Amino acid sequence: MQAHELATPYPTVTMDTNALEAARLLTEHGRPGLIVVDEHQHPIAILPGSQVLRMLVPRYVQDDPALARVLDESHADRMCDALADRTVRDLLPKERVKLPVVAPDDTVLEIAAIMAANRSPLVAVVEERSKTAALSGAISAAQLLGRILPVS
Amino acid sequence: MQAHELATPYPTVTMDTNALEAARLLTEHGRPGLIVVDEHQHPIAILPGSQVLRMLVPRYVQDDPALARVLDESHADRMCDALADRTVRDLLPKERVKLPVVAPDDTVLEIAAIMAANRSPLVAVVEERSKTAALSGAISAAQLLGRILPVS
Repeated sequence: MQAHELATPYPTVTMDTNALEAARLLTEHGRPGLIVVDEHQHPIAILPGSQVLRMLVPRYVQDDPALARVLDESHADRMCDALADRTVRDLLPKERVKLPVVAPDDTVLEIAAIMAANRSPLVAVVEERSKTAALSGAISAAQLLGRILPVS
Repeated sequence: MQAHELATPYPTVTMDTNALEAARLLTEHGRPGLIVVDEHQHPIAILPGSQVLRMLVPRYVQDDPALARVLDESHADRMCDALADRTVRDLLPKERVKLPVVAPDDTVLEIAAIMAANRSPLVAVVEERSKTAALSGAISAAQLLGRILPVS
């Protein structure tokens, strides 16, 4: 079994995707993050859902979450205004979350080793063994385990 | 809106859960990790799927994933033998992955602030404001965003 047989579609954004659209994609797909691709569809980073939330929380509340108590419910309703004029570029953390990339002919054991070494719940699968190849899908740790586990 | 209204069930294990059973739970639920609870059902850690995979990969392949190429497919079939005699205790990384905990009456903004500050895609919700309270569910970043986003 090789990576290209295991890869499944995964929601992507570019650096220029509107932040509100990225938030909607996260919600629709129920994933912990989105894959950020460049203009050639090559995967370059993960946008974690927690970073989108970060943009919604005022700086003084980020520094002291207890201060959230003093803000009323109406603030929560306006939280998403902060996203409308931003893009994914603004949401990405300074320290980028690495997304390991595997080639289409990588084996189950190679994929498992790469996920374990990177402590990543996800790997991106690209179309060919090249540093600029386009994304063809992704494999999660849970999916990979499902293929390895003996049938009970 | 408060945490107890947002919490949904989440798969849990204890330190003594068999590693193979934990792997099956991850696969069934398709989650990036499992919540580890103590004997009082209080959440104490996250078991990431990537740590379960780590146990399946021989040490020399972890150190150099390229070596996975030299192992044949039959090895992959036997990979799960490594799990049968282990427990969750053996799978947890030395540096525990922190799972932020919120109280049932925490607000949307408080939950968002805690997720953002901890860069966590998940928070555990406990039954009462106490350091030993039992788990009542969990909230993911995607779920929380879904409650905050304006209806399009």
